[in-house]
Amino acid sequence: MSEQSVFAAELSWPDYDARVRDGKVPILLPIGSMEQHGHHMPMNVDVLLPVEFARRVAMQTGALVAPPFTYGYKSHQKSGGGNYLPGTTSLDGATLVAALRDVLKEFARHGVRRICLFNGHFENSWFIIEGIDLALRELKWGGIDDMKVVVLSYWDFVDKDTIKRLYPKGFPGWEIEHGGVLETSLMLALHPEQVRLERAIDHAPASFPPYDVYPPKPEWAPASGTLSSPKEASAEKGEILLQVCVDGIVKALKTEFPN
Amino acid sequence: MSEQSVFAAELSWPDYDARVRDGKVPILLPIGSMEQHGHHMPMNVDVLLPVEFARRVAMQTGALVAPPFTYGYKSHQKSGGGNYLPGTTSLDGATLVAALRDVLKEFARHGVRRICLFNGHFENSWFIIEGIDLALRELKWGGIDDMKVVVLSYWDFVDKDTIKRLYPKGFPGWEIEHGGVLETSLMLALHPEQVRLERAIDHAPASFPPYDVYPPKPEWAPASGTLSSPKEASAEKGEILLQVCVDGIVKALKTEFPN
Amino acid sequence: MSEQSVFAAELSWPDYDARVRDGKVPILLPIGSMEQHGHHMPMNVDVLLPVEFARRVAMQTGALVAPPFTYGYKSHQKSGGGNYLPGTTSLDGATLVAALRDVLKEFARHGVRRICLFNGHFENSWFIIEGIDLALRELKWGGIDDMKVVVLSYWDFVDKDTIKRLYPKGFPGWEIEHGGVLETSLMLALHPEQVRLERAIDHAPASFPPYDVYPPKPEWAPASGTLSSPKEASAEKGEILLQVCVDGIVKALKTEFPN
Amino acid sequence: MSEQSVFAAELSWPDYDARVRDGKVPILLPIGSMEQHGHHMPMNVDVLLPVEFARRVAMQTGALVAPPFTYGYKSHQKSGGGNYLPGTTSLDGATLVAALRDVLKEFARHGVRRICLFNGHFENSWFIIEGIDLALRELKWGGIDDMKVVVLSYWDFVDKDTIKRLYPKGFPGWEIEHGGVLETSLMLALHPEQVRLERAIDHAPASFPPYDVYPPKPEWAPASGTLSSPKEASAEKGEILLQVCVDGIVKALKTEFPN
Amino acid sequence: MSEQSVFAAELSWPDYDARVRDGKVPILLPIGSMEQHGHHMPMNVDVLLPVEFARRVAMQTGALVAPPFTYGYKSHQKSGGGNYLPGTTSLDGATLVAALRDVLKEFARHGVRRICLFNGHFENSWFIIEGIDLALRELKWGGIDDMKVVVLSYWDFVDKDTIKRLYPKGFPGWEIEHGGVLETSLMLALHPEQVRLERAIDHAPASFPPYDVYPPKPEWAPASGTLSSPKEASAEKGEILLQVCVDGIVKALKTEFPN
Amino acid sequence: MSEQSVFAAELSWPDYDARVRDGKVPILLPIGSMEQHGHHMPMNVDVLLPVEFARRVAMQTGALVAPPFTYGYKSHQKSGGGNYLPGTTSLDGATLVAALRDVLKEFARHGVRRICLFNGHFENSWFIIEGIDLALRELKWGGIDDMKVVVLSYWDFVDKDTIKRLYPKGFPGWEIEHGGVLETSLMLALHPEQVRLERAIDHAPASFPPYDVYPPKPEWAPASGTLSSPKEASAEKGEILLQVCVDGIVKALKTEFPN
Repeated sequence: MSEQSVFAAELSWPDYDARVRDGKVPILLPIGSMEQHGHHMPMNVDVLLPVEFARRVAMQTGALVAPPFTYGYKSHQKSGGGNYLPGTTSLDGATLVAALRDVLKEFARHGVRRICLFNGHFENSWFIIEGIDLALRELKWGGIDDMKVVVLSYWDFVDKDTIKRLYPKGFPGWEIEHGGVLETSLMLALHPEQVRLERAIDHAPASFPPYDVYPPKPEWAPASGTLSSPKEASAEKGEILLQVCVDGIVKALKTEFPN
Repeated sequence: MSEQSVFAAELSWPDYDARVRDGKVPILLPIGSMEQHGHHMPMNVDVLLPVEFARRVAMQTGALVAPPFTYGYKSHQKSGGGNYLPGTTSLDGATLVAALRDVLKEFARHGVRRICLFNGHFENSWFIIEGIDLALRELKWGGIDDMKVVVLSYWDFVDKDTIKRLYPKGFPGWEIEHGGVLETSLMLALHPEQVRLERAIDHAPASFPPYDVYPPKPEWAPASGTLSSPKEASAEKGEILLQVCVDGIVKALKTEFPN
Repeated sequence: MSEQSVFAAELSWPDYDARVRDGKVPILLPIGSMEQHGHHMPMNVDVLLPVEFARRVAMQTGALVAPPFTYGYKSHQKSGGGNYLPGTTSLDGATLVAALRDVLKEFARHGVRRICLFNGHFENSWFIIEGIDLALRELKWGGIDDMKVVVLSYWDFVDKDTIKRLYPKGFPGWEIEHGGVLETSLMLALHPEQVRLERAIDHAPASFPPYDVYPPKPEWAPASGTLSSPKEASAEKGEILLQVCVDGIVKALKTEFPN
Repeated sequence: MSEQSVFAAELSWPDYDARVRDGKVPILLPIGSMEQHGHHMPMNVDVLLPVEFARRVAMQTGALVAPPFTYGYKSHQKSGGGNYLPGTTSLDGATLVAALRDVLKEFARHGVRRICLFNGHFENSWFIIEGIDLALRELKWGGIDDMKVVVLSYWDFVDKDTIKRLYPKGFPGWEIEHGGVLETSLMLALHPEQVRLERAIDHAPASFPPYDVYPPKPEWAPASGTLSSPKEASAEKGEILLQVCVDGIVKALKTEFPN
Repeated sequence: MSEQSVFAAELSWPDYDARVRDGKVPILLPIGSMEQHGHHMPMNVDVLLPVEFARRVAMQTGALVAPPFTYGYKSHQKSGGGNYLPGTTSLDGATLVAALRDVLKEFARHGVRRICLFNGHFENSWFIIEGIDLALRELKWGGIDDMKVVVLSYWDFVDKDTIKRLYPKGFPGWEIEHGGVLETSLMLALHPEQVRLERAIDHAPASFPPYDVYPPKPEWAPASGTLSSPKEASAEKGEILLQVCVDGIVKALKTEFPN
Repeated sequence: MSEQSVFAAELSWPDYDARVRDGKVPILLPIGSMEQHGHHMPMNVDVLLPVEFARRVAMQTGALVAPPFTYGYKSHQKSGGGNYLPGTTSLDGATLVAALRDVLKEFARHGVRRICLFNGHFENSWFIIEGIDLALRELKWGGIDDMKVVVLSYWDFVDKDTIKRLYPKGFPGWEIEHGGVLETSLMLALHPEQVRLERAIDHAPASFPPYDVYPPKPEWAPASGTLSSPKEASAEKGEILLQVCVDGIVKALKTEFPN
């Protein structure tokens, strides 16, 4: 317990209560997953990154960071390699929806009226939307209609100029940035001891036909588990990404949660 | 990513896969909660403690620790003060059941056949049982009938002699040990920077009638959120608890997961 | 139909309506199970006993007894032998939760505002709590926020002195009192024609390690299905239990549902 | 416990096990409800009648009667007056489906392969079908594909000649026989102490337009709660019904569950 | 998009909005199924017919027809041949309930307060009731308590005189009118190009014992999939049915949705 | 009924059965929605278009088109304007998932082993994936593990060259192509009588910040309901789109469902 921590769960309840009960202080909730990220990175990337973004944003805005969701929705072949890969450990859609609905309602009970979800795992996106929709519906039934929820994926804050700087040879697209330059650079900047870039498999960006097949076809995705090569990743790129995204998110939150 | 980490999500997928695919290596899964723990402790106690127990046990047994469940079932008045208290952030029973069912099935898909759940939050207990039951049922439908799951709450490994040593003035019972000597001593031993013992409220052990009332009656529980006084807690007691419980759990796992 | 019956379902609707519509008269709802209770007792013990306690309490308090839940949650190895035993016939947790939620809401629709659940089966406990929580939540959504629910298990009203009288050789603990002296004595007092004490298997109290294993291990529990020996049971002890528990429950209800 | 009881829950588990484990002995499961039945009858009619039919059929066929479902699906205006009436206490459809699914699967676990559901409440019908369908589906997933389930409502065994004898002035149709001559006569034959025929309201048979309206329109149904007058009911008619229906059901079960 | 269409989904949103936002204009919602209808008719009968009835009624009343439910509840052996037949494509009960609940709530959000469900598939009936009940419950939680829903099956508007005209040799009953004279005549009147009466199998009306068996027994139902012979069907009879039913439904809606 | 129809539900069951029972013939299942599409188009666009694409593809491949899903998932602000707009009529995520799961399993029961989902509504995407995943899981439990499902959204088959031809002034991106040039051109080519291009509101492409807000902010999206202007739409462009997409889809299906 630390009276000054930005992590809500590191506060005692009286300290937390004093911070949130009037509804002004936003709660930042990282939604991650346990998912394979290639040979060169651990499986906690989608938790570590949104937690760190949330922490930095909280430092600048006075928000509090809630405990992350450590498991997320199933990996999709075109954005995470597919849910048949070893290590990837996923929830059914309904489970993620219910968990998010429950937690949002609990924060509302505490008085919180501003929540920002920091998504770290692309496939969570639509189930996050449904979880919010159900939570807002039930809150309304319970008489609370002033909750506001912002949802963001940090990579959406990387602007075009930054993309050009980071991907001088061309940007493969966010969808196949799984285990690629973006995530690897961020991990190199933040948790270099958890990256073994020398183990990364270099390969051409994954290229998929314009449709999906189920069960997924292992031959469609690189055997490494990454969808684009991380070889060009660097801590410097990670620092750039951190700065650009944190700045963008801070600005967004100041707009949506003024004063 | 570290090839030697005991935390499964800190491994790359090939390293993880090599460890678990033959089913021998147990997965230790901490099930926590975000719950108020009085004025003197943070709200992450029920996550930090089972994670640390799991880590120590994994170090001795070669098991791997999965990412913890960071939210748990609703706090009950007689064992956690009640779910109306600020900060306590809980899941519906069905949500916890579904999340556990999903994750157990995913580990089974990886090849895991031995799982030990480290419960850190009393109220999770019965929903854990249901989650396991549903997972084993569905695994059987899918043709897997050799999964074995052990469930434990670390405090159940404190033997009578240790209780006498730790509670020379008498043991109030595990149920009202919420935020009391046990948890506080463990936190003092492990995370002293997160404890403010001087802020603890001293009070007589909570005493409840032999029935429950809903909605809970705030006047039944101490306003501090603890159910027994943590004043007699100490890091020394925490060390004793750590040793006794880790020894007991290691022995249990060697019995249930031999070789 | 009897205008004077304490059983709600034995009343005509106009008589029932006249009794409950102003919300003063409590409904007592027995929650049982169909569960094996050893060689010497039938499988309806967990229904018969709470129904009888409810009936006696209703006679003294003017409450009404609702039809019992005849099936309950899965038997747990350490408190009921395990759900693999023949005859034990159980519901999924979600089913019990839903059934209780539905019925509580229906009573509220009738005008009832005081309900006491008489649990006869240990394993129902946490799913009862969840059922109540969901019912109160939905009632609140529907504009009803003055429902009060008491939950009790009759054995919790046996005080320490009575325990000493009934178990002169030492009390094994409620958890393993499955099919033991308590239940058998009560059945001998109330339904002696349904007990064959001569068929009871005498054995040492079941002793379990401080953790659970799934699937359950048949070798952990006595083959008889009882967890402690019923040999010392007697109708006299049953009468004592009846009196102590009924007195305690009546007092509790007068406290919680005054006037 | 009685070794000879036809009620499954009155047996000890070894006696029950010996009876059912080879799958030959049918389980008869009464599905009732708690529902208003007019001014002259109690609200347990839909439980008492199928239980008694099941008991009589079990006596003649060697089957066992399981504990009844004491709550059922919502009363419909055209067949039970509507679910807004006081005293009627109903389950959501999904709850009834789940409860039946669970219990059928448990009997299958015991070895039972022949089950007959005795429905006592018209509105249960379609949810019973769904419960069976889900149970058979899951049993098949678990490797059991030889379960056979018969479903019946006792009134469907009343043949045309008997109808003429019982309703000399014309038969109003089963749908509006709620609390009318059929049920009242059976109750007079079986539980005369629970009937107050002098309190029955005489009225013309309810007549409804060929569509339904929700919320139900109280002005459509007689205020008494019955849909046809019970005034012509008699114990003699009840005896005729008992004989005709029991004979018919016994014959049906001998056909479907030969030897 | 047509400003004058009676089909709601053929309007642009501003045109639709102008029509429905004050709650006066009823929405007619056809609930069908994809179900085998014998050798002589396609599997869309239960969609085409209620859509056409709704269209005609809308033309006369100013109502709007919503997109139909194209899949419905499982076919029952005694009313549709059984859900094991090829081509019949059904939903679980819970799915149909949820879909109807969702859609009713959405129409309420638009301002609609009058809805009439046109059921084209007998087996949908009870799940429709549950869907409405859940929708009205949730709407009430959300503060909307003036929604009125009418449910009808068009065949219930065929009066006794018409039955005599259409079935001069005797009426087999609606339950076994599956693929018989009623539906075939309507299809001949409306979609003659979709009927091959020469392929119809002539057979005696299906005759079932007074109980059901699961899994269904194929030998109980005619192999053709129809439950009564369609041989006497004609376009003329179809025209009579159309007129009688449309007149009856229009009258009912004018009664229930006056002005 | 037409023996030659490409619409599965226009076949009689014997004709359908003959086509599908050996598993070779694919079922094409359009998944639509009822959703506002601006002032100039009706609300059935997301049904009409995938049905027509499926029909054309079926004509060329011998596949069969199943009845469409007429309702879909909630409109998202950035891709459909938001689910608060009048006329948009949506399902909860769980409902869509369940409906798809049910229908896929039914087709499998018929013998179908090749299914292609034609999605017409962007927001359905992830719930379609979950529905397939649950269906394949349950089919596997039931012993069927050779089902193959292709999912596509027709717009993904528009190649870069075609985009340049259709959007000479620059392509706004698929996400905001809601009610824009693509859909409007297709409707002009296929259903010109349902388009009122003169009513279309011309506006700059919607531009959103890189995050979402809930409840949605009406000021973020054009009041018209379209996200990009349809003014440049034409039947000619529609014909180009039809040809390009149909060709692409036919090729894809020949690849995935060879022979």
